[in-house]
Amino acid sequence: MEASSAALLRAQSLFMSDHQSVVSLNLFVALLCGCIVTGHLLEENRWMNESITALLIGLCTGIIILLVSGMKSSHLLVFSEDLFFIYLLPPIIFNAGFQVKKKQFFRNFSTIMLFGAVGTLISCAVISLGVILFFKKIGIDSLDIGDFLAIGAIFAATDSVCTLQVLNQDETPLLYSLVFGEGVVNDATSVVLFNALQSFDLNHMDPKITLHFIGNFLYLFFTSTMLGVLTGLLSAYIIKKLYFGRHSTDREVALMILMAYLSYTMAELFYLSGILTVFFCGIVMSHYTWHNVTESSRVTTKHAFATLSFITETFIFLYVGMDALDIEKWRFVSNRPGTSIAISGVLLALVLVGRAAFVFPLSFLSNLGKKNPSERISFRQQVIIWWAGLMRGAVSMALAYNKFTSAGHTHVRDNAIMITSTITVVLFSTMVFGLMTKPLIRLLLPQPKHGAGTSFSDPSTPKSLVNSLLGGERDSEGELLLPEISRPDGLRALLTTPTSTVHCYWRKFDDAFMRPVFGGRGFVPFVPGSPTRRSES
Amino acid sequence: MEASSAALLRAQSLFMSDHQSVVSLNLFVALLCGCIVTGHLLEENRWMNESITALLIGLCTGIIILLVSGMKSSHLLVFSEDLFFIYLLPPIIFNAGFQVKKKQFFRNFSTIMLFGAVGTLISCAVISLGVILFFKKIGIDSLDIGDFLAIGAIFAATDSVCTLQVLNQDETPLLYSLVFGEGVVNDATSVVLFNALQSFDLNHMDPKITLHFIGNFLYLFFTSTMLGVLTGLLSAYIIKKLYFGRHSTDREVALMILMAYLSYTMAELFYLSGILTVFFCGIVMSHYTWHNVTESSRVTTKHAFATLSFITETFIFLYVGMDALDIEKWRFVSNRPGTSIAISGVLLALVLVGRAAFVFPLSFLSNLGKKNPSERISFRQQVIIWWAGLMRGAVSMALAYNKFTSAGHTHVRDNAIMITSTITVVLFSTMVFGLMTKPLIRLLLPQPKHGAGTSFSDPSTPKSLVNSLLGGERDSEGELLLPEISRPDGLRALLTTPTSTVHCYWRKFDDAFMRPVFGGRGFVPFVPGSPTRRSES
Repeated sequence: MEASSAALLRAQSLFMSDHQSVVSLNLFVALLCGCIVTGHLLEENRWMNESITALLIGLCTGIIILLVSGMKSSHLLVFSEDLFFIYLLPPIIFNAGFQVKKKQFFRNFSTIMLFGAVGTLISCAVISLGVILFFKKIGIDSLDIGDFLAIGAIFAATDSVCTLQVLNQDETPLLYSLVFGEGVVNDATSVVLFNALQSFDLNHMDPKITLHFIGNFLYLFFTSTMLGVLTGLLSAYIIKKLYFGRHSTDREVALMILMAYLSYTMAELFYLSGILTVFFCGIVMSHYTWHNVTESSRVTTKHAFATLSFITETFIFLYVGMDALDIEKWRFVSNRPGTSIAISGVLLALVLVGRAAFVFPLSFLSNLGKKNPSERISFRQQVIIWWAGLMRGAVSMALAYNKFTSAGHTHVRDNAIMITSTITVVLFSTMVFGLMTKPLIRLLLPQPKHGAGTSFSDPSTPKSLVNSLLGGERDSEGELLLPEISRPDGLRALLTTPTSTVHCYWRKFDDAFMRPVFGGRGFVPFVPGSPTRRSES
Repeated sequence: MEASSAALLRAQSLFMSDHQSVVSLNLFVALLCGCIVTGHLLEENRWMNESITALLIGLCTGIIILLVSGMKSSHLLVFSEDLFFIYLLPPIIFNAGFQVKKKQFFRNFSTIMLFGAVGTLISCAVISLGVILFFKKIGIDSLDIGDFLAIGAIFAATDSVCTLQVLNQDETPLLYSLVFGEGVVNDATSVVLFNALQSFDLNHMDPKITLHFIGNFLYLFFTSTMLGVLTGLLSAYIIKKLYFGRHSTDREVALMILMAYLSYTMAELFYLSGILTVFFCGIVMSHYTWHNVTESSRVTTKHAFATLSFITETFIFLYVGMDALDIEKWRFVSNRPGTSIAISGVLLALVLVGRAAFVFPLSFLSNLGKKNPSERISFRQQVIIWWAGLMRGAVSMALAYNKFTSAGHTHVRDNAIMITSTITVVLFSTMVFGLMTKPLIRLLLPQPKHGAGTSFSDPSTPKSLVNSLLGGERDSEGELLLPEISRPDGLRALLTTPTSTVHCYWRKFDDAFMRPVFGGRGFVPFVPGSPTRRSES
């Protein structure tokens, strides 16, 4: 038996062309399961959240692999930007757009854009300036002005994934929509900014080039948004016209998934910002397409998108955790531990200052435009906005790997130090700032509705995140049919006082022109459940 | 503006390390959307089905790419076994196990195993013998006995994906469960057989090696099944114990998806048959795990798995269609078109004969064991079973590429001819045999219930397939809670007469020991919808 088994084994390992990749895959899937179960067990914990759990599990696994492999390699996969930008990020951002409360988002649209676009530019400028000032003193001298600006862009990218987990859409709707909306716009801005900085000859700056730069930025922003909106509308139109609901839940769901992904890949194809595109595609799909499908499609898409996003988020944190012990780069640093600590410290300080430099002034600006005092952003809320956006995550990692390595490797000392510093900043900010966010919110904003002990133990988990997004805590059936009818709520009622006339005009336009063409709530006959072809034919 | 745009474009194409892959991805996603819409429009067509549509769209795209690229290359991706076996096949087979009607499947278990395992061996033997007899005469002389046996295994693999689309579980439950069950077991058998044949020194056959071979085969079969069952039970136990339903629909769905995939990768890790493992994992999950989750999780998993399987199937046919014009191999053939046609003809004939050689004798054997005449397989049904399993698909393609190319390329003439012949057989059998299956069934089995005109225009589409699997045409709410209570039905009522005492004992064992531990219908408190934490705390 042994001889033939061995022979069979050999043949099958030939057949399975790369058995090592199966081993990695296995480990990742098993760890993901572990993260979910652990995350569930730690759900009631007031400090932890899913991201930090995944990050810690990833770190521990990295250490074990490092020890098993004899200090040679700690990771099964080298951090790959392609994997991250093409496969992992789109579902997260799409789901964010799909589940965001559109009213809140659009009511605060101007503030969000101010924070997301202008704020990121300010943050980038502050960090770049600080880096130019301090790095020479620390002893990093091989970097040029382009590198310093790139560092500004890298560390201006907040981690919208982690941010989502510390704020609760139901309990702090204003803060949630501001911080979350800013995060999405910020992701897009940072990537666009990073790419733009890479391509300009920064030694010959003149006003004309600066104007080009701004024009380009606005052009990218506008076209990306339009592409997302158009793809979303196209999906709504196709599903409404062909009326897939009559036939197939699975076809509808498949078409929604594929068209959402198509919007992202099309944006990448035309060198636009896929993040912005897929975010607006998600918003349009939830506003029109989602209402054109059968009820089982609605339940399925809601939960399937949320699950996909949840798995992807967990995967990213696991991956970042496992990749943190990048021994190749840490070897360069081990000779000069002081330098690395100094750089990480400077970067963390600059992140804190850079964010403060725009949150408080821009909040002041935004408050100037609001007549109703209850709509203004209070100082305590400003502190939370500042703090909740301090985490740096996978976007920063991906940009840093892109800038300072080629295909994941580098042999330049300063580049290796920049990679390890980025890893340090990401780990430190996610863990320390992330852990302290929940207690900080509890301190600054004592909730009137619930006891302070329970009201903020929930928000950290994807469960409560998603359920609050989905209104899952209400009557689920009623909610499914009328997802936007909200309960009266103190803070919310104040916020929904009709100040934004733009929104009012939009509703009129929507009802008169858009919904009759693209469907939407109230414009599609009620389809109770699965297809009822029998009764039709 | 132009200068800076161009610079930005350059930089972004650097950033996007492989823009060509984005183009391919875009094209694939767009074509998938096209396939779904076209498939929907052709739904009422009595000949077409989704597979053939996707295959034709793929072929047309291949031709266009071939013309655009100046006859250089027709495909964006070379057919990759890894992609197929690691990512595309598992969701299809898992969904098949998840949605199969378990009663029918287990009632016909012995017949299915007879067809799937013994039948595949007979078919393989017949095809190998035929190939040995005819190929020398045609002028293929560089192949040895191992190659001939491999050809037998390659063409013994029926295409369970396409088979699913031509039969209807509600209208022909016996035929469906036989042909479909056989297809799954056959897939596993062919792959195991192919691998086993690759590893044996076939020039020194003796009885001992044959015994080893059979022992190995049984061992693989048993361990693969057990691994799937155990993973499924583990998922049921975890979800029941931790009671995720109280907390998070998304966590439950994520855990089900990940554990299902884990079972597959673990099987691959231990060199078992992942196909069998994931199939039985699907069966166990639908029997236990599915009943332990919230109702929204149930709706989501049902439709999400079906959608995933649907997208993957469409992708495979598109991919096979696009890959059919593999110009590198067709060049070898173009010198001797007669040989290629002769080989394809011989192979098609052998496929027909090989399948006939086991369907009719084994049906006779199976009928001998049945006391009740209504349970026997009539001659007309035997003809349909024979015909519905004639299609060859992606499994054959993947095995042929594995055997006759290295990394998708070959420079040996006979090997190239074998690849093109495989492509010809796959295309011909899917299109011609596939197209003729629906009319054949209508001819041989006039349905008593419906008019002949409407009853068989439905079954071809994934919609009707999935809905019938899900019982989607019944009251969806009631169905969700009690999915196995079926309507009385002429043919079905006869089939459900309690002849199988094994099934009866199993039910008793299940109720007494399994369900109390692992949950399942009736053993988990009813969870009406989304989590109700508020009411608990």
